[in-house]
Amino acid sequence: MSVERSIAIFSPGLLGGSLAKSILQRLPGMEIRIWARRPEAVEEVRRELPSVHATLDVADAMRGVSLAILCMPIQHMGAVARQMAGCELAADLIVTDVGSVKGSVVAELEPLFARANATFIGSHPMAGSQHTGLAHASGDLFHRAACLLTPTVRTPRPLLDRLRAFWLRLGCRIQEMTPEQHDRRVARISHLPHSMAVLTTLAALGRDSSVLDSAAGGFRDTTRVAGGEPAMWAGILMNNRAEVTAALQDASAVMRELLEILQSMDEEALRRFLARAKALRDLLPAV
Amino acid sequence: MSVERSIAIFSPGLLGGSLAKSILQRLPGMEIRIWARRPEAVEEVRRELPSVHATLDVADAMRGVSLAILCMPIQHMGAVARQMAGCELAADLIVTDVGSVKGSVVAELEPLFARANATFIGSHPMAGSQHTGLAHASGDLFHRAACLLTPTVRTPRPLLDRLRAFWLRLGCRIQEMTPEQHDRRVARISHLPHSMAVLTTLAALGRDSSVLDSAAGGFRDTTRVAGGEPAMWAGILMNNRAEVTAALQDASAVMRELLEILQSMDEEALRRFLARAKALRDLLPAV
Repeated sequence: MSVERSIAIFSPGLLGGSLAKSILQRLPGMEIRIWARRPEAVEEVRRELPSVHATLDVADAMRGVSLAILCMPIQHMGAVARQMAGCELAADLIVTDVGSVKGSVVAELEPLFARANATFIGSHPMAGSQHTGLAHASGDLFHRAACLLTPTVRTPRPLLDRLRAFWLRLGCRIQEMTPEQHDRRVARISHLPHSMAVLTTLAALGRDSSVLDSAAGGFRDTTRVAGGEPAMWAGILMNNRAEVTAALQDASAVMRELLEILQSMDEEALRRFLARAKALRDLLPAV
Repeated sequence: MSVERSIAIFSPGLLGGSLAKSILQRLPGMEIRIWARRPEAVEEVRRELPSVHATLDVADAMRGVSLAILCMPIQHMGAVARQMAGCELAADLIVTDVGSVKGSVVAELEPLFARANATFIGSHPMAGSQHTGLAHASGDLFHRAACLLTPTVRTPRPLLDRLRAFWLRLGCRIQEMTPEQHDRRVARISHLPHSMAVLTTLAALGRDSSVLDSAAGGFRDTTRVAGGEPAMWAGILMNNRAEVTAALQDASAVMRELLEILQSMDEEALRRFLARAKALRDLLPAV
């Protein structure tokens, strides 16, 4: 059994909706309260997830919950969090999020909730899709995903243990690190690949998009995430710009290396260059 | 009915093996002759595809066939093609290939076979995998794939029509263009994405591959093709180096643009940059 009493989800998009579906499947009987900014989104939740309490009112969403999860794009978290912190909060409340950047988020939200006698701990389940919205939500989205938790020296251990237990129940693999370690790691494994998919798309199609007629699986997979939501990703990349810039500069350096090899017409050097990448890529276990 | 009498496949790797399986499924009764360089490969074909005639002898493979298809890495095509051209050839012979570069291949093989009173026409079915070998071959690999044919002013129209008919029967969508148009197009839609997947892998994992523990679907898809065979891809990229270089230089230019936007901290400019890529990527139909 989960020790949570009831759970509030803020914003029923792809991640919030998937979280609700996953909780319904894996924590049967758990009360779920969903806050949405738009009346149409509240209506959609009531239609799609009739057992869930959906509301436009932050205080109503927070009523009695032991766990509240911020699922909106990171640039909108602060405003909602300030409303949450002004509500009557349960004594054992944990607030967390599912955002892709932790340094700036934890720096803002940990002291905000501490002043309200609640605890904020950053979470980042490594799951998503190029699609958005409740319509694409899936109760399996978090299953077997890595979930990165970013406690600080101020995080009470018993509350961190509760948050770990929650994500474990959803099927995640837990990894613990500081917010700074998180941002460095995720820049490499997520924000860089996202940026490179964007650059590949622009360079492949920018001059003549009709080449798409000849696309195969390689183009499709390599650029899939470039179909992601621009405003959400602008917030992510900008909030992690130092680490993203460092990763892109490394990519720029290996690109210069590749261009030099092509210019030198040294096919054996090119084979070794490609073999270096293959050896690294082959470290990733097959699904 | 196909007008082909019997078909020779040179090299039973992923592409040659998939071609054989596809012909067995879609052109029942067609005689298939497979040449392999290594005795173990001949044994594997006899075990996996018992209805196929497998041989180490180029002349034996060519005996009486109306269509011969080169399926080895492009840097090895010339040597085998010279042996083929020295054999007794059927009067109606078409030789084609499945290679990823056409300018250099057509320039070498078209005159070579013309001197032997046969016709070479380049083909490029846009299908593949990061995997290699007959064990991964699939009879569905070419189904619904674009197949780029690259006739020249010297190509006899009736033979081109026969080659079109063959690929259509395997389920391909035919696109016709010059070898030069092919290489420009494929540099953008295949060789660039492949190169970018390689660069992403090196920049993501080059400093610390332990970040792989946190990888999700975005990293997996964006870098999948970096697991491809280094020697094969070295041949492809080197043989198309002018167009690949031009595409990489465009990627380098958009990378500088992205780095400048990050430095300027202009989130709205970043959103527009990402939206440009999304609009292009969204042109690709969902599978």
